[in-house]
Amino acid sequence: MTLRILPVTGIGEVGAGDDLAALVHGAAPDLAAGDVVVVTSKIVSKAEGRLVAVPAAGPDRDRARAAAVRAESTDVVAVRGGTRIVRTRHGFVLNGAGIDASNVPPGRLALLPRDPDASARALRAALRDRYARRVAVIVSDTAGRAWRIGQTDLALGCAGLPPLRDHRGETDPYGNPLTVTQIAVADELAAAAELVKGKCAGVPVAVVRGYPLTGDEPDGPGVAALLRARSEDMFAEGVAEAYARGHRDGRAGRPESPGG
Amino acid sequence: MTLRILPVTGIGEVGAGDDLAALVHGAAPDLAAGDVVVVTSKIVSKAEGRLVAVPAAGPDRDRARAAAVRAESTDVVAVRGGTRIVRTRHGFVLNGAGIDASNVPPGRLALLPRDPDASARALRAALRDRYARRVAVIVSDTAGRAWRIGQTDLALGCAGLPPLRDHRGETDPYGNPLTVTQIAVADELAAAAELVKGKCAGVPVAVVRGYPLTGDEPDGPGVAALLRARSEDMFAEGVAEAYARGHRDGRAGRPESPGG
Repeated sequence: MTLRILPVTGIGEVGAGDDLAALVHGAAPDLAAGDVVVVTSKIVSKAEGRLVAVPAAGPDRDRARAAAVRAESTDVVAVRGGTRIVRTRHGFVLNGAGIDASNVPPGRLALLPRDPDASARALRAALRDRYARRVAVIVSDTAGRAWRIGQTDLALGCAGLPPLRDHRGETDPYGNPLTVTQIAVADELAAAAELVKGKCAGVPVAVVRGYPLTGDEPDGPGVAALLRARSEDMFAEGVAEAYARGHRDGRAGRPESPGG
Repeated sequence: MTLRILPVTGIGEVGAGDDLAALVHGAAPDLAAGDVVVVTSKIVSKAEGRLVAVPAAGPDRDRARAAAVRAESTDVVAVRGGTRIVRTRHGFVLNGAGIDASNVPPGRLALLPRDPDASARALRAALRDRYARRVAVIVSDTAGRAWRIGQTDLALGCAGLPPLRDHRGETDPYGNPLTVTQIAVADELAAAAELVKGKCAGVPVAVVRGYPLTGDEPDGPGVAALLRARSEDMFAEGVAEAYARGHRDGRAGRPESPGG
């Protein structure tokens, strides 16, 4: 298996109501069956009209942005300085709820798509109508990580590919059970696509060709299958936040309640 | 820029003292200048003799494994059930210190390479002597993430490429400063390579071709540049651990000391 990762150039500016399938088809008329079309969430947000107006600068802008982050979040995970990591309504853990002022007009903020798995399914269906072939779709975004400096792209939504490659029950050539059980291939495909998309080059779409898909796969569970439930999440809260909560409870003589 | 990701097949079993550059050269005689050779850390560990003998099964094995994890760690980050996430001597945050029993003979455990950046530099130099062209090298491993189900490959070591692509100071087409500042391309390249290496297929090496490198780049800072200092890490400890520490301090009337 050899993979090719192809940038899709010439998409141009995307506005509310634009037909992304038509834009992709215009820029990349030769998709192959089973190609994975990786689309930066920003242009999905724009096409879906997910820009909100905010003051162009100053404290009013900061307040409007903070209000937007609150509205898009269910939980605050960790705050330090200008970093405010939250759990979004979708269940993503992202700085500032993934709300972004880059590559949008001044005085606007881009919210994430309301349901990126649904966006991926809709775009996949629309691409099926444009092309004689069926492809898979990933909606990607750039995110920081715990423990490591630098951001990488990951999948916010996907359709037409299993987001996890499951090795449970397999053994290695020595007969040992595999320690690694599930590979988050949707995230790896998004990361691979970022390498050709870059950030400034006006390349919001890339195609991964050669990944073992026929195109006839069901839409599948989407990136929802990659989201860890808060109760299973050992890092659902930053150290400072969890420590402070414990300190309050201990000082007040309350019993331990690590889950909050 | 189009990337190609090529599996390198036919490496075969690797043993202590084996010459990885010779094995890669035998299996992939046609590397191009600026190719990125991504090598699974497991075969680096094997070549460097980083297997340790443990009982093949039973509680003695579990004790020996736990002792190896302790010896390779500086801090316990979070423990839940069979999951023991630690900070390794290198500064990686990994379940079980990245010590792995898969793809090694029964009665052995593979420790991570002692210094994966040094391993990458050494392999790069050895490959330069084998080929008429200069390449970059990444030593990769598979790791879990906070917040998301499934594992992805990331870089433990690298030489010959900048591990971060820096966007600080750049602006988008609207003149907004870019929110995204640094992309951890070494990790994205490792993730991309995993897509063709898989876990069971006996493909411990992949080549990424087309990434904008000439081959003449300096070894660079390596993956050390991706490691967040513990004091900067908002997730240096799991929620349960941080909460319990806070509760003890609060109950004892000690002042808050979130950093431990």
